[in-house]
Amino acid sequence: MDAIGIDIGGTKIAGAVVSKDGTIVAHDRVATVAGDSGAIVDAVVQMIEKLAAGRDIRHAGVAAPGFIDVDQSIVYYTPNIPWREEPLRQRLSGRLDLAITIDNDANAAGWAEFRFGAGRTVSDMTMLTIGTGVGGAIVTRDRLFRGGFGAGAEIGHLRVVPNGLICGCGARGCLEQYGSGRALLRMANSIADAGGIGAGLAAVRAKTGTLEGHDISELIINNDPGARHALAELGRWLGEACASLSAVLDPQLFVIGGGVALAGELLLEPIRAAYLAHLPARGYHPEPKFAIAELGNDAGVVGAADLARHNG
Amino acid sequence: MDAIGIDIGGTKIAGAVVSKDGTIVAHDRVATVAGDSGAIVDAVVQMIEKLAAGRDIRHAGVAAPGFIDVDQSIVYYTPNIPWREEPLRQRLSGRLDLAITIDNDANAAGWAEFRFGAGRTVSDMTMLTIGTGVGGAIVTRDRLFRGGFGAGAEIGHLRVVPNGLICGCGARGCLEQYGSGRALLRMANSIADAGGIGAGLAAVRAKTGTLEGHDISELIINNDPGARHALAELGRWLGEACASLSAVLDPQLFVIGGGVALAGELLLEPIRAAYLAHLPARGYHPEPKFAIAELGNDAGVVGAADLARHNG
Repeated sequence: MDAIGIDIGGTKIAGAVVSKDGTIVAHDRVATVAGDSGAIVDAVVQMIEKLAAGRDIRHAGVAAPGFIDVDQSIVYYTPNIPWREEPLRQRLSGRLDLAITIDNDANAAGWAEFRFGAGRTVSDMTMLTIGTGVGGAIVTRDRLFRGGFGAGAEIGHLRVVPNGLICGCGARGCLEQYGSGRALLRMANSIADAGGIGAGLAAVRAKTGTLEGHDISELIINNDPGARHALAELGRWLGEACASLSAVLDPQLFVIGGGVALAGELLLEPIRAAYLAHLPARGYHPEPKFAIAELGNDAGVVGAADLARHNG
Repeated sequence: MDAIGIDIGGTKIAGAVVSKDGTIVAHDRVATVAGDSGAIVDAVVQMIEKLAAGRDIRHAGVAAPGFIDVDQSIVYYTPNIPWREEPLRQRLSGRLDLAITIDNDANAAGWAEFRFGAGRTVSDMTMLTIGTGVGGAIVTRDRLFRGGFGAGAEIGHLRVVPNGLICGCGARGCLEQYGSGRALLRMANSIADAGGIGAGLAAVRAKTGTLEGHDISELIINNDPGARHALAELGRWLGEACASLSAVLDPQLFVIGGGVALAGELLLEPIRAAYLAHLPARGYHPEPKFAIAELGNDAGVVGAADLARHNG
């Protein structure tokens, strides 16, 4: 049976009707009214009603950033939306005649890749979503790993540098500060400042006054040595983090998703090289594969819908 | 029904008949013939036969250090014993009329604490075993987390310092080099070298020419400031690592086991302090508890027996 998946982001709310095999049958999107909790709940209710109209649908999954409790009922905390210990499932269930599930957005995206994307042939997968920040998802023995309080798989907050850069989470040295899209921009700006191979980056920055993600992407495609160096540096941090994560999680596959993963093999290559150079006990146990995520921006809604069906 | 648990260590092989509630009914131990694979297999077979004699026992679990495959059949690698891709389960099954299970020794110890010890009231637990090295075990949703190839939960090889101290695993900066019994000795020696609060440590070292674990223990009990400082330093590293692990594993409980954990609250206190100071997103999600392991050296045999019963 089809199910509905909703993905609440900082700038937009996306929704879809998703079939059992992960195909999107219908979709919808509206802008997020940032900072207005009631308006966001209203928008989600309306979107689910609209998508369900005239269809036999019994399950809806809602993905949101932040911490969701292990019973998938309460949002402990969401960045950009003023939810603190918000009983989101109850709030939605009270207004809708469907079984509602809520989950973390990175978990939903990871689950979609596991079921229908890059991870569909393995049982144990670790996904890193490289967007503005670094999100994570862990699947083990065909099940989503949520942790004891539902706040697990926050791979972006693995510490990679003691006393390192301050992170938005309040800790220091988190992977998110070294392996995210924001970190890539910081590195690109440093390289531009340094001159030399940074001349291309500096020239683009001089035109617009700032470097943005799409600038770096274009320069990478055009073989700019400074932009490629920044991407390789990012990959090195991610690969070293994966080596450390392998000791703990030992996945059969690492999936790299998010906007930065559009760089494909140019990103995977430095990840793999750093991974192998830093893997504990290399040669004494099997090694995982690395792959780019396949579902792109649809992963959140597809995963949320499929998780709702599984839970329902 | 009772089951047999065997724990193959570097210096001894311990065995026990364990009841369903985790009680040891009978036990045995022999010295490990280090480096002789055939002699170790012979000793395990003889010990199981001896413990099973006259009893209705159908399951035996064997715990060994190193990497065991996810099907719990093959030892990929064991330190100190020349096993490389050794089909240990088959080798034992062929000579014994019992269902044989093999597992990593830290996994077995963690499972015992989860079932009958410090972790018996939670569903999600992470255990760090602080002996000569640092072992790990992860339980999630009441199940042992083994990873995709069986080599997961090697928490001692989480990297805590980029380009840090070289580790026996070939990588650098592993937790094992900062949070193990061996690291405690290194820190104690440094403190002894530095004089000042190290005077007590230096005096003991001058008598015997070396500092050993029991020397540090005695000095800690006698309030020696240098020994206590070394223990606090060890606790700080462990607490910071637990903060990083929380982001990924989010356990309800951290259990600290192994010989160094006999220091009890003197070790837990610096662990908790460092944990809270470095926890990502502190205050936005529930926090785990910390406890000392309860089963001591018996954890390996008790866990191996219980896992065999569960798998059988």
